[in-house]
Amino acid sequence: MTETELSRLAGTVRPVAADALEAAQARLDKLTKPPGSLGRLESVARRLAAVQGTTRPAIRKKRIYTLAGDHGVTEEGVSAFPREVTPQMVLNFLRGGAAINVLARHVGAEIVVVDLGVDHDFQGVDGLVHAKIRRGTRNLSREPAMARDEAVQAVGVGVDLARRAAEDGIDLLAVGEMGIGNTTAASAILAALGGLDPEQAVGRGTGVDDDGLRRKADAVRRALAVNRPDPSDPLDVLHKVGGFEIAGMVGIFLGAAVRRLPVVVDGFISSSAALVAVRMAPAAEDYLFLSHLSHERAHARLLDLLDRDPLLVLEMRLGEGTGAALGLTLVEAAARLLSEMATFSEAGVASKGA
Amino acid sequence: MTETELSRLAGTVRPVAADALEAAQARLDKLTKPPGSLGRLESVARRLAAVQGTTRPAIRKKRIYTLAGDHGVTEEGVSAFPREVTPQMVLNFLRGGAAINVLARHVGAEIVVVDLGVDHDFQGVDGLVHAKIRRGTRNLSREPAMARDEAVQAVGVGVDLARRAAEDGIDLLAVGEMGIGNTTAASAILAALGGLDPEQAVGRGTGVDDDGLRRKADAVRRALAVNRPDPSDPLDVLHKVGGFEIAGMVGIFLGAAVRRLPVVVDGFISSSAALVAVRMAPAAEDYLFLSHLSHERAHARLLDLLDRDPLLVLEMRLGEGTGAALGLTLVEAAARLLSEMATFSEAGVASKGA
Repeated sequence: MTETELSRLAGTVRPVAADALEAAQARLDKLTKPPGSLGRLESVARRLAAVQGTTRPAIRKKRIYTLAGDHGVTEEGVSAFPREVTPQMVLNFLRGGAAINVLARHVGAEIVVVDLGVDHDFQGVDGLVHAKIRRGTRNLSREPAMARDEAVQAVGVGVDLARRAAEDGIDLLAVGEMGIGNTTAASAILAALGGLDPEQAVGRGTGVDDDGLRRKADAVRRALAVNRPDPSDPLDVLHKVGGFEIAGMVGIFLGAAVRRLPVVVDGFISSSAALVAVRMAPAAEDYLFLSHLSHERAHARLLDLLDRDPLLVLEMRLGEGTGAALGLTLVEAAARLLSEMATFSEAGVASKGA
Repeated sequence: MTETELSRLAGTVRPVAADALEAAQARLDKLTKPPGSLGRLESVARRLAAVQGTTRPAIRKKRIYTLAGDHGVTEEGVSAFPREVTPQMVLNFLRGGAAINVLARHVGAEIVVVDLGVDHDFQGVDGLVHAKIRRGTRNLSREPAMARDEAVQAVGVGVDLARRAAEDGIDLLAVGEMGIGNTTAASAILAALGGLDPEQAVGRGTGVDDDGLRRKADAVRRALAVNRPDPSDPLDVLHKVGGFEIAGMVGIFLGAAVRRLPVVVDGFISSSAALVAVRMAPAAEDYLFLSHLSHERAHARLLDLLDRDPLLVLEMRLGEGTGAALGLTLVEAAARLLSEMATFSEAGVASKGA
């Protein structure tokens, strides 16, 4: 993918139709329940229906893309876990032993693991989508994490993953990630696009102590000073302070929106990718479903910049797509309620005030 | 069941073992994830493991009991829906068209509908558990809703339902209810047991307007004045201002605790039943999992009296067990994470700081 192709793609994203939202609401109000009594599930169902262009949305096939990449900024001591954990966890995903595997099975979703930039040679490893662009980003606190065209290439991988999902008949996508050091990249994106002070944009990630937290804020501060990412150019921010797996998720969000596929966003890191995608194509927001508010302290600020509320608040902070998996089953529940419930007249039930 | 038998049963409820909680925590900390990163799901998994007395909890069979009953207080104009809706919705449950049917299918749970006090003759209707005690309670704002022995009888039905679930090999129970007028009864229980002013204890239920809300507060105020329920005697409160389906849920909570079966609580009304059960047998709380904070405005005050946090906040206010069904799938997810995830050593993953 070239940058021109990416711009063209972003330009084709269209919001969902207002009349489709109204038609879904009209059906919701005929179902055997007090109006509005399904709460947040009703707005989810309504938007999902509009995304699918029907008042009877159906979710048959679900897929979770878990994207992995390493981060040069780990040399600044920003993570509680060593860098080798990224490839080790990728292998754990492939063997089915990680939290995301358990939750994917629980919610009936397929999981597809993609290497976009892990610092490990996975040659010959089965069951992994091999889309490595480089063995990890450069240290964003000293230089751009990726070249601009590398970032575009990673976005292109994501666009392709969304296309493949559509071709495979997937009705609902979810994303997640694995990458030691990637909360620092996500914090840098938040600081750059949200105009936040680095202290406000960082959190404890997988569990750094106070010193680690200071090192993260420091790394983000230097990243902004050295790279001067331009908040009016989301691709500039992405390539300078992002990561390969983050860029891949940006591509999935854009590609899904183009193909009118709903996508469930995971936690802090995938939300930073969602913010980049929405800055590239504002209407992409209509296709995003925010699964949860994570325990990462800056996540709330990040979600404030996306104009949607998360479905869950469970103090999770694991990534991988674990929050998205749970969000996905709630989105599916909402769709089924709209499609499968009886109406007052079908059921012979008196409606309000009747 | 007699009152003496009920007291004896309540006296046999034991808290979960502290060492079982510790053993579950020890396993949680060996799993391939940063310690604590599954957030609230970890405390759910830990307690569920302790309830089952294992570090590898298993949820194979799930059942939702939806209990129905009518309320004499409807003659005070406290509900937005007419009283006939209770039997109409019971029939909707049996035909599979209600929200709870859709959600039960979605989460893979069986649903069992029980008539404890609906003002309708269901003779010959299949698929319904016939346990009617009377065709609706008396008007609690004028006289006791139930005789003391009627309430005991309804609790006994619930105890029996929990016993049957255990015998049927159910691993996880959930409860819900249907009964036009029952938010008023639940509010009266909350006001009586929590020492709240009636205004603080009522909400809009299925959607009453401001006048309806005043009538509800008024009905609760008169209920307390006329009946003088004794907060130190939960059975006194239950029979004077409760309802048949509420008493049935009290019995399920107690019976489940005795049989060490975890139970997921639904919204405002089932939480009022949980409060009564916990006042009868404080250790019963260990077996309860609160599914959601509902949109009913007094629910937060009610949950404050139960020493647990709800899993979901989705502005739902439908009852039937709809919140409990979603809570149930989260509890099951937590159990599966604890049982199915690989440990650091099994997966060959470096742990924190390694």
